Amino acid sequence: MSEIRILPLASLPEVGPGDDLGALIVSALASAELRPETGDIFVVTQKIVSKAEGRLVRLETVEPSAPAREWAQTYGKDARVIEVILREAKRIVRMERGVLIVETKHGFVCANAGVDASNVPEGMVTLLPEDPDQSARRLREELEKAFGIPLAVILSDTFGRPWREGVANVALGVAGLAPLLDYRGQPDTHGHTLQMTVVAAADELAAAAELVMGKTNRVPVALIRGYQYNPAAGSGRDLLRRAENDLFR
Amino acid sequence: MSEIRILPLASLPEVGPGDDLGALIVSALASAELRPETGDIFVVTQKIVSKAEGRLVRLETVEPSAPAREWAQTYGKDARVIEVILREAKRIVRMERGVLIVETKHGFVCANAGVDASNVPEGMVTLLPEDPDQSARRLREELEKAFGIPLAVILSDTFGRPWREGVANVALGVAGLAPLLDYRGQPDTHGHTLQMTVVAAADELAAAAELVMGKTNRVPVALIRGYQYNPAAGSGRDLLRRAENDLFR
Repeated sequence: MSEIRILPLASLPEVGPGDDLGALIVSALASAELRPETGDIFVVTQKIVSKAEGRLVRLETVEPSAPAREWAQTYGKDARVIEVILREAKRIVRMERGVLIVETKHGFVCANAGVDASNVPEGMVTLLPEDPDQSARRLREELEKAFGIPLAVILSDTFGRPWREGVANVALGVAGLAPLLDYRGQPDTHGHTLQMTVVAAADELAAAAELVMGKTNRVPVALIRGYQYNPAAGSGRDLLRRAENDLFR
Repeated sequence: MSEIRILPLASLPEVGPGDDLGALIVSALASAELRPETGDIFVVTQKIVSKAEGRLVRLETVEPSAPAREWAQTYGKDARVIEVILREAKRIVRMERGVLIVETKHGFVCANAGVDASNVPEGMVTLLPEDPDQSARRLREELEKAFGIPLAVILSDTFGRPWREGVANVALGVAGLAPLLDYRGQPDTHGHTLQMTVVAAADELAAAAELVMGKTNRVPVALIRGYQYNPAAGSGRDLLRRAENDLFR
């Protein structure tokens, strides 16, 4: 095992609908005098992808339903935001004590369906990208074309977790690497066969990237260098537990 | 934000009960010609701490109870291992379809109470350390004394997560840094006040470290260098959601 480096890319401008995110990243890399190397993994926050893809909702255009209004009133929330969350949801997992955890149309289980008002202009919220894998693939193609080397892209967002305090960054969309690392069948240090270890490598990469991103800073992109992986098409969907294996529905 | 480096420490010998883990790490650092720097965070896998602390159970000494035997028979498991898991549990969270998720005496919610047969000699399993914070504190003291600089220590283990496939490394014990990073009240890039963002920094640090650790390799320790944090006593207990806020009991 060799060293891994996590490099922050801070010099991106404010991203807006229609912006060519790939081109913005390429130019930010140039300003930072940061040249990607073969196999580098770009971790990109969902937020700037959503902004570039126009996944923004102006709250004044939203007419909240009666349930959204009632919930919002009970817990001192904005009914229009609740309405947007409910529209993004395929299934409500928990809706109690002011906490709204849903399964999104993509299959992500998270608070507020990933709808978020932070780091966006007043009166607006962002939605998650419509197809995070496709967003990751598109970005990967653009970056690989710009630099002429194989790269990988992870689209990330911070999710809460049951039983543990605080949010942690996870991978929503993946392009260029297998998100799960399957050790089953391999021998451990005592020669036993490992039985059940599948590591969510893409989630750990996203978590690692968050350490240089922070929340209030303009560091929406991180490069991870030195992580050994086998290139693969990859998909964030591999990280979603199927309903039949889910004990916490 | 500056670069973060994750440095693997591979040259540790097999650890056994009574070993001075701090001394082993100091000597492994010397062999690797790796000199800790101020603020470096040592992430250490639970497994070697448990071994050093003698938290090993010889399965031939375990008499399984009737429920353990029944469960083991139904799902093709070792009844003695199930018995050990049930003894480590304060509360059973889920026990179905061959999956046993419990709350440990420490308050961790995880599969099999952290009882593990991988990377240990045949016929034995490891338990989690009795007090992971204390283990982390002790290791930190020893390392700080050896190098004469402030350091931090995280004790880690890989846990499964509801809704997502694969395990990810999390922090069980923490010494020297605040495990949660609280952004509430700080302005975002648009000057709004961030409402609800508390980041589980120690879990993300543990996840980052796992990227150089792997599962079949002898890399039980990683150094994280360059992560900016405010030194604090710290405790892994801060990462445990209290029962009254837990929607998934």
